[in-house]
Amino acid sequence: MTHTDPISLTSDLIRCASVTPANEGALEVLEALLTPAGFECTRVDRNGICNLFARCGPKGARRSFGFNGHTDVVPIGNLEDWTQDPFGAQIVDGIMYGRGATDMKSGVAAFAAAAIDFSKDLPDDAALILAITGDEEGDAQDGTTALLDWMDETGEKMSLCLVGEPTCPNEMGEMMKIGRRGSLTAFFTVTGKQGHSAYPHRANNPLPAMARLMDQLASHSLDEGTDHFDASTLAVVTIDTGNPATNVIPAQTKSTVNIRFNDIHSGASLSQWLNDQAASVAATFGVEIDVQIKVSGEAFLTPPGELSQIISDAVMAQTGRRPEMSTTGGTSDARFVKNHCPVVEFGLVGKTMHQVDECVPVEQISQLKAIYGQILQDYFA
Amino acid sequence: MTHTDPISLTSDLIRCASVTPANEGALEVLEALLTPAGFECTRVDRNGICNLFARCGPKGARRSFGFNGHTDVVPIGNLEDWTQDPFGAQIVDGIMYGRGATDMKSGVAAFAAAAIDFSKDLPDDAALILAITGDEEGDAQDGTTALLDWMDETGEKMSLCLVGEPTCPNEMGEMMKIGRRGSLTAFFTVTGKQGHSAYPHRANNPLPAMARLMDQLASHSLDEGTDHFDASTLAVVTIDTGNPATNVIPAQTKSTVNIRFNDIHSGASLSQWLNDQAASVAATFGVEIDVQIKVSGEAFLTPPGELSQIISDAVMAQTGRRPEMSTTGGTSDARFVKNHCPVVEFGLVGKTMHQVDECVPVEQISQLKAIYGQILQDYFA
Ligand SMILES: [Zn+2]
Ligand SMILES: [Zn+2]
Repeated sequence: MTHTDPISLTSDLIRCASVTPANEGALEVLEALLTPAGFECTRVDRNGICNLFARCGPKGARRSFGFNGHTDVVPIGNLEDWTQDPFGAQIVDGIMYGRGATDMKSGVAAFAAAAIDFSKDLPDDAALILAITGDEEGDAQDGTTALLDWMDETGEKMSLCLVGEPTCPNEMGEMMKIGRRGSLTAFFTVTGKQGHSAYPHRANNPLPAMARLMDQLASHSLDEGTDHFDASTLAVVTIDTGNPATNVIPAQTKSTVNIRFNDIHSGASLSQWLNDQAASVAATFGVEIDVQIKVSGEAFLTPPGELSQIISDAVMAQTGRRPEMSTTGGTSDARFVKNHCPVVEFGLVGKTMHQVDECVPVEQISQLKAIYGQILQDYFA
Repeated sequence: MTHTDPISLTSDLIRCASVTPANEGALEVLEALLTPAGFECTRVDRNGICNLFARCGPKGARRSFGFNGHTDVVPIGNLEDWTQDPFGAQIVDGIMYGRGATDMKSGVAAFAAAAIDFSKDLPDDAALILAITGDEEGDAQDGTTALLDWMDETGEKMSLCLVGEPTCPNEMGEMMKIGRRGSLTAFFTVTGKQGHSAYPHRANNPLPAMARLMDQLASHSLDEGTDHFDASTLAVVTIDTGNPATNVIPAQTKSTVNIRFNDIHSGASLSQWLNDQAASVAATFGVEIDVQIKVSGEAFLTPPGELSQIISDAVMAQTGRRPEMSTTGGTSDARFVKNHCPVVEFGLVGKTMHQVDECVPVEQISQLKAIYGQILQDYFA
């Protein structure tokens, strides 16, 4: 049995300065390791974004275990604030420093190493698939979606997928993600008629309508949460008018509302609700209200089942902790993968992600590889 | 009986480019006319602002009729837009053009000419006072207030005062002002706690509180008007946050509210109400709300009585119109004079004031002088 070192692989990846959407050789590092290990590698680049698809075992296998992750990283911020080279992968007292140390070059290294080591034991009718993108932190328009589009076109299929993003708030093993809330942003423009504030009856002030609408939206309880989700939340993030003259009633005002919603709702149902609320207030006040809505991701849930149980047991065995099955937090590429197959996320402690001096204890990289390896063993057992 | 020409006096004044707060010889034109006519002239300049006090008759006279007006004018705007020299006082087809033609060099000229002509018939125990300022259109900090302060200090007293501002919307004689609404501007700052819009429970969004407060203020009916005043009005003129990030809950948001209020209210009573409303919403939402209030002028009324009746009758006699006794419009220096003595405003048609090609039919200047002259005759009869 081979023993692929996930720590040196993490170092090699950190040394590629792949600040989103740059690749800087990161995917080549993986390809150079996976190809000799028997993985069929295909670059699925789109619109200048680099993506890597790697499969071990037959295409269209009945059981096909997928891993998804990204090699791009967020910008380093202010270099002077770092105590270590952000692309040096320096190890100090057992802790490796660098941009992507937790999010998520270590995660990619851990699942790549686990997959290579396990591939020798892979049943004949089974496959391992690694879908690795260079654009998760950026627009994510041509990243995992490009990989999934290409897989659909060419008949590649994952039975299920484990996304290796950091999921643990503080301690290794304490949390996995079995779904994510959806996210929607609504942009409101209320238009009335300008005038002098001494003669408000000759004007049509858009601000009272805006205040009423924002009060109604913010006061509304979307739900009280579901079995696996917290209550949906709505945040009015800005109201702006830009009128410097205290004796002038403005013609227009704008606002933005962000909603994080659970599986009771959809982008469409919330859009309908927002439009209805706006239309009602517009009628009450006799103003025009324009609503533009951008749905960044739908809520989704992979209900607790075989995959989450295997992951939970493997985490328990390796860390002594039973991970909470959570749906909290922002969005990840799991929002795309869920359209392809059941998807669960498990990875390292994310505390330092996106921060200065991002770092990871090297033993946790080995521990993560061991967890991923045990998941593969248990799944294919 | 002398016949002082108010038309040539208006021309002389317009030719002084006294764009606020400049004087450019305007008050000297008046002084040169008033002094030989028996008026005791005193320049009451303060902080660089020029003001002229002129009295005919004994100081402290039992009956002392005052006129108030200003010789400063608003800027001309875009010179290319004028068809006539804004400081040329050109007369075309009986219409005199120039900045201040209606607001209010013609008014000052009309009351100065009327006062000079009437001074020969002034009873021994009576006085005429002209309180003319060079700063009504600007800050008005050292204009009519400087004159009134000086009068208080030196024992000068008007029994009542007629302000010669343009008061007629369209036709000569149709409106006089027996009071003005007050004006107040309130600046609100709501402060909460910044956070990520995915975790609103860790933040404290100031925007729902702002929306609630502005909705409550805008929805509230201050009153339904009084015998001589329209209903008070409240206008939310701006709400601003300036948060460009849709995933961030801001820490702070600001708004401005302008109130035009009648004699049911005072700056103090409205300030109390606004502070109470803000405190209540702050408590409900657990945010801080700072309220800064600027009272530009209190509402005041000179109840219809002897003075307004004399003016009304004189206008009726000279124009055939019975002027409406109104309290509409913005503010004027009458808001200062009302602390000294009963004050009423009557003057020309204000349609072109503050506009390009400001102008006045010359016959209306003569008509205004005739009205002012008859008012003096009737008052002292
Ligand atoms: Zn990530
Ligand atoms: Zn004026």
